[in-house]
Amino acid sequence: MRKLVSTLTGLEYPFERFEEFADNGEALEVAVAGVEEARPRPGRHIWERFAEFLPFKAMDASASLGEGNTPLVDAGGRLKSFAGVNRLLLKNETQNPTWSFKDRGSLACIFMAQEMGERTTATISTGNMGHSIAAYGARSGIKALVFVPEFAPREKLMAMTMHGATVIRVRAPDYAAMKKEVLGLWKDFKLRIVSGNGPIRTEGYKLTAFELFEQLQGEPPDYIAVPTSACGHIRGLFKGFRELLAAGLIGRLPRMIVVQAANNSPIVSAIKQGVKHVIPFSNFHTVAEAITTGNPMGGDEIIAKASEHGWLAEDAAEAEILEAQRVFAEAGWFVESATATVLCAVRRLRAAGRIGAGDSVVLMLTGAGLKDLDALKHQSFNVIESNLDNVRSDLERALL
Amino acid sequence: MRKLVSTLTGLEYPFERFEEFADNGEALEVAVAGVEEARPRPGRHIWERFAEFLPFKAMDASASLGEGNTPLVDAGGRLKSFAGVNRLLLKNETQNPTWSFKDRGSLACIFMAQEMGERTTATISTGNMGHSIAAYGARSGIKALVFVPEFAPREKLMAMTMHGATVIRVRAPDYAAMKKEVLGLWKDFKLRIVSGNGPIRTEGYKLTAFELFEQLQGEPPDYIAVPTSACGHIRGLFKGFRELLAAGLIGRLPRMIVVQAANNSPIVSAIKQGVKHVIPFSNFHTVAEAITTGNPMGGDEIIAKASEHGWLAEDAAEAEILEAQRVFAEAGWFVESATATVLCAVRRLRAAGRIGAGDSVVLMLTGAGLKDLDALKHQSFNVIESNLDNVRSDLERALL
Repeated sequence: MRKLVSTLTGLEYPFERFEEFADNGEALEVAVAGVEEARPRPGRHIWERFAEFLPFKAMDASASLGEGNTPLVDAGGRLKSFAGVNRLLLKNETQNPTWSFKDRGSLACIFMAQEMGERTTATISTGNMGHSIAAYGARSGIKALVFVPEFAPREKLMAMTMHGATVIRVRAPDYAAMKKEVLGLWKDFKLRIVSGNGPIRTEGYKLTAFELFEQLQGEPPDYIAVPTSACGHIRGLFKGFRELLAAGLIGRLPRMIVVQAANNSPIVSAIKQGVKHVIPFSNFHTVAEAITTGNPMGGDEIIAKASEHGWLAEDAAEAEILEAQRVFAEAGWFVESATATVLCAVRRLRAAGRIGAGDSVVLMLTGAGLKDLDALKHQSFNVIESNLDNVRSDLERALL
Repeated sequence: MRKLVSTLTGLEYPFERFEEFADNGEALEVAVAGVEEARPRPGRHIWERFAEFLPFKAMDASASLGEGNTPLVDAGGRLKSFAGVNRLLLKNETQNPTWSFKDRGSLACIFMAQEMGERTTATISTGNMGHSIAAYGARSGIKALVFVPEFAPREKLMAMTMHGATVIRVRAPDYAAMKKEVLGLWKDFKLRIVSGNGPIRTEGYKLTAFELFEQLQGEPPDYIAVPTSACGHIRGLFKGFRELLAAGLIGRLPRMIVVQAANNSPIVSAIKQGVKHVIPFSNFHTVAEAITTGNPMGGDEIIAKASEHGWLAEDAAEAEILEAQRVFAEAGWFVESATATVLCAVRRLRAAGRIGAGDSVVLMLTGAGLKDLDALKHQSFNVIESNLDNVRSDLERALL
């Protein structure tokens, strides 16, 4: 038995429901009966090994592009000293097939579409999610339809259309109005329009929790810091650990760290101010362009979870984000600006004593730096200009 | 005992040699005594499991960025029918830390620098290799120095400098003259300047062969198609299989498929024409910008190996490359244009009957499409322009 349950008041809906949120706007999650008895089993892919934790009746390997199985790496001295945290690990989701964490959620969407016999899957996106869904649609032969706002960058549209997605660019007074109008179209078209916080994508993000469980030999970290926008990623990760706890496979839950840009912090501001509802942001600008949901639907769940489970929340100022992006690169990782926020947040929380000296922290590297070249215009960069006559003396100076 | 041996006439040099080629210009490779007795052993990383096959005395996990462990995926119906090959697999090296195959070679360079106590590692690059070395230098605290030609794209310089590399842009009449001058600098500065075809990087590319061995349960594929420029990748892959054969772990070698753009095919032309020496190309243009070495040093080895081992060689025309890049994307993989050449080549070879109907073929996906956005200007792309009033009717038409 599987169903959708709303995350705050427990409203129940059928698993097949098209709409991504409860009628009252709450986030939905999948409840699978018997998860307490679920066990990992041998398998090549993470979704094969943890199939008993997933709600899909069949999962066809031919839908996979080789997502997941991403490295968990010691962050090294430079990042540890910057953050002030000695047990610092990086979960590098940029090593997914479309170079962001979105691929795990897209795989789950394809499993769902296949099970429901749907020929089309739709989304609203400015970037990573649209690219990912386009790739997975191409892989599985399911038509991908991406609604994009006017400001979506040309490179990202090119990636989507290269994959054969149908891209509809919708002119509108603002992105929120565009989203509302588009999401309302599901009914007439019987179209599943997935958002970044739907119950099915969230099932895909659980896989990261299962991988961390394997990579850390069953011992969850103390904290996991996640750049947060639509909220699907952070709640999927946490749901995975909740289910591992319910199954008796771990003895405690990690605490999540909700991270947003200070210029757009609808969840983090609410948590810090101790209120129960998302504080909408509009007309903001941030370099962290992959986390620009100003009024995330279903975001109240995250605020409630933070309170219930002792999560932390922190934001990052624009200059800090750019500095952290550079520090990440100087340690070996070229991440997108949205990802860089987690380093700022953990540094602040450690400095404030909210994270302890001996605590272990995992930073989620959500997207590749190459995805967001626009943000680099804010970074200075220096090249030594030389020529055949001067290269010897220029090298000499460079080596000093 | 370990030494460097030239690949055609067997000249011997010490392992520590700074220069990447023999005095007569031949490619060098590492010979490790006792490889016949080498065995895989348990370990987390591929270089730990195959340590007995590698020449380094110590390999420090803290130099790793989490390279390798990339997926080997069934190519799916679209690519199989396009290529005319039923047993078609993709080894996706774009899921490495800097999103190209270069990371395996860079790791080997860092192991070497650490063992030799070198504080600086240098390279000449227009893109992927410079980016990769910059990242690995940042990770290990070894200064990365990248010499770039005038035409190196700005985005790639930004990635290198973000990682803290020192970038020297050398104006010169042509890239070959610039390379020659820069490589000559090693002596005065006792500087290891690595090329794409040096013996140490090649040891890193062996790791891909070992992974394929593991992923295919000890049964090598019939063919492996590799976009070929400097030649280090293809010979590293093959060297890995040669050593597995010498150790008695496999019963036969795969045959390599050397692939180049027709507009720049110094190796493929030589093999096709049955001559023994590289046919230099200059003043060419190809969209496959990651494989633009017109006169690869040490390339004669590849021609000899092709003859000795029955390798295949094929080139790809410009229009074919762009078509194949689109076909790859329509199957789920957004690869750089240089990578797309392998699909054209395999299609041609199958059509000509050089590859058999039942043969298994692995395509090496060497670099991410995001690395080479310039090439996309040749691709058409189509977006449906809509607005809030028309989005319903536009969707209706899009779903027809």
